[in-house]
Amino acid sequence: MSILVVGSVAFDNITTPSGSVQNVLGGAATHFALAASYFTTVRVVAVVGDDFTAEHENVLKKRGIDTRGIERAPGKTFRWGGSYTDNLNEAKTDFTDLNVFEQFQPKIPKEYADTEFLFLANIHPALQITVRQEMNGVRLTGGDTMNFWINRTPQQLADMLRLVNVLLINDTEVKMIAHETNLPRAAQKVLAMGPQALVIKHGEYGATIFFRQGAFGIGHHPFRAPALPIEEVQDPTGAGDSFAGGFMGYIASQGEVNREVLKRALFYGGVMGSFTVERFGTDRVQSLSREEIDARFQIFRELTHLE
Amino acid sequence: MSILVVGSVAFDNITTPSGSVQNVLGGAATHFALAASYFTTVRVVAVVGDDFTAEHENVLKKRGIDTRGIERAPGKTFRWGGSYTDNLNEAKTDFTDLNVFEQFQPKIPKEYADTEFLFLANIHPALQITVRQEMNGVRLTGGDTMNFWINRTPQQLADMLRLVNVLLINDTEVKMIAHETNLPRAAQKVLAMGPQALVIKHGEYGATIFFRQGAFGIGHHPFRAPALPIEEVQDPTGAGDSFAGGFMGYIASQGEVNREVLKRALFYGGVMGSFTVERFGTDRVQSLSREEIDARFQIFRELTHLE
Repeated sequence: MSILVVGSVAFDNITTPSGSVQNVLGGAATHFALAASYFTTVRVVAVVGDDFTAEHENVLKKRGIDTRGIERAPGKTFRWGGSYTDNLNEAKTDFTDLNVFEQFQPKIPKEYADTEFLFLANIHPALQITVRQEMNGVRLTGGDTMNFWINRTPQQLADMLRLVNVLLINDTEVKMIAHETNLPRAAQKVLAMGPQALVIKHGEYGATIFFRQGAFGIGHHPFRAPALPIEEVQDPTGAGDSFAGGFMGYIASQGEVNREVLKRALFYGGVMGSFTVERFGTDRVQSLSREEIDARFQIFRELTHLE
Repeated sequence: MSILVVGSVAFDNITTPSGSVQNVLGGAATHFALAASYFTTVRVVAVVGDDFTAEHENVLKKRGIDTRGIERAPGKTFRWGGSYTDNLNEAKTDFTDLNVFEQFQPKIPKEYADTEFLFLANIHPALQITVRQEMNGVRLTGGDTMNFWINRTPQQLADMLRLVNVLLINDTEVKMIAHETNLPRAAQKVLAMGPQALVIKHGEYGATIFFRQGAFGIGHHPFRAPALPIEEVQDPTGAGDSFAGGFMGYIASQGEVNREVLKRALFYGGVMGSFTVERFGTDRVQSLSREEIDARFQIFRELTHLE
């Protein structure tokens, strides 16, 4: 089944201990779409500028991604510069030029109306709400956000949380939303605000999914998936979005959405994140095969499963 | 089979967001011994002062722990005061009164000579070396250390590392020993210094075991065990030592030491750590049953295992 992602397409300048790259294709929607494309049909709603060429679009098209929802606006594409020192879990933002992204008003092509799954990448919660209301026939909505919206637009964020089924954020964001430093307690508070499930991304330590009582089946235990201990992390940029793409893409590929599907999806999220960090930008996730993905899924299983 | 732990017995003053306690029984050897006692016969070598009463000793004896190796010296027992604020992963040390522990010279009773498993808790590496050399008939030695020895006595620490089979330390300590910020690379460097296996404790994110190529069986993948997401962490003091006690105790209880045993041991380590933090000091781990432990082991399995 198809999935629609609404979010940013960007050009990134990235510096890590492994090197530097300029003007590489990035953005949450890009990383998400490429990762999800190994599992299901992916559609994108985003905005780009004059500097987004046919060659850039072909990166997505080669993976079968439907780019009809990528709007071209006069001006430049969103540009971000970031650098990492020893702590690869945290980027220092060198610059953010929103450019055409500043006035982004998501326009959903008519042909996308039948999309079954929706992912609201990290954009203004007011826009996330508009998209979600327009796509009111979807089976499941996933969403992301960031510290900026948590601090600046808490009310709109709260409204957004009531409209997503699965929220995917990191430890710090969960604690910020909940005003609570104990992670499991913070998770319960966030679930009480709307989502039926909360995926907390722990970076190199993997991810945990917490469920609202009764959501997606019985049981009250959370579930944890690992991240791969990787010796050569070239560039962590986009790992969280690739995680979301693997997670949501796998869910969309299944007939049913239940806890077992969500657990396996958590593993596939980790798998896609682990590929992303091996190369700069989208390099590694442009050219995978489903066989490589499933082989790594097996490694993740061996990493955590007792006989 | 029996296990000997050599380390500190202490009285602790602890303050956490959940409350305060004074003069509670603590110390690495105490937490280790109590946790290991649910799996196997435990022997202790430590030193205490005049303030260590029969009542204190009975906490250990009730769990069947052999206390003949606990030496009584004139003076006071080691005392430690620590407090935790919101970050329960890190204690602020309020005071350290080494007292009789300052002149600790481990004396191993003749009756302990046939002990099969050894755990060198966090003491001066020179003492760890002496004990290990005296106990040269053991099947497997586990060891711990801390930043103080890593910085102050690197050469003696390096000598110690050649004598332990499994080193159990945390992320920061691994990176300090290896002078390397990437965790898997740091792990390989530490393994090259001696141990056949390295257990890295990640606090609330669980633990990872890395193996030296060919050690304890075939394969080159690490293995990860979770920690339980706990809503009421009353006191994290001793969690790492309880982890080591569960890990080593389970290994000692098995006939054979192979990778599958070490993986299950990693789960039992997490299980014992998760009980410890639920109450102050050793309260929770004094009064468990093997049934409670195995029930929690099942929860850990459900937390991580796909169908």
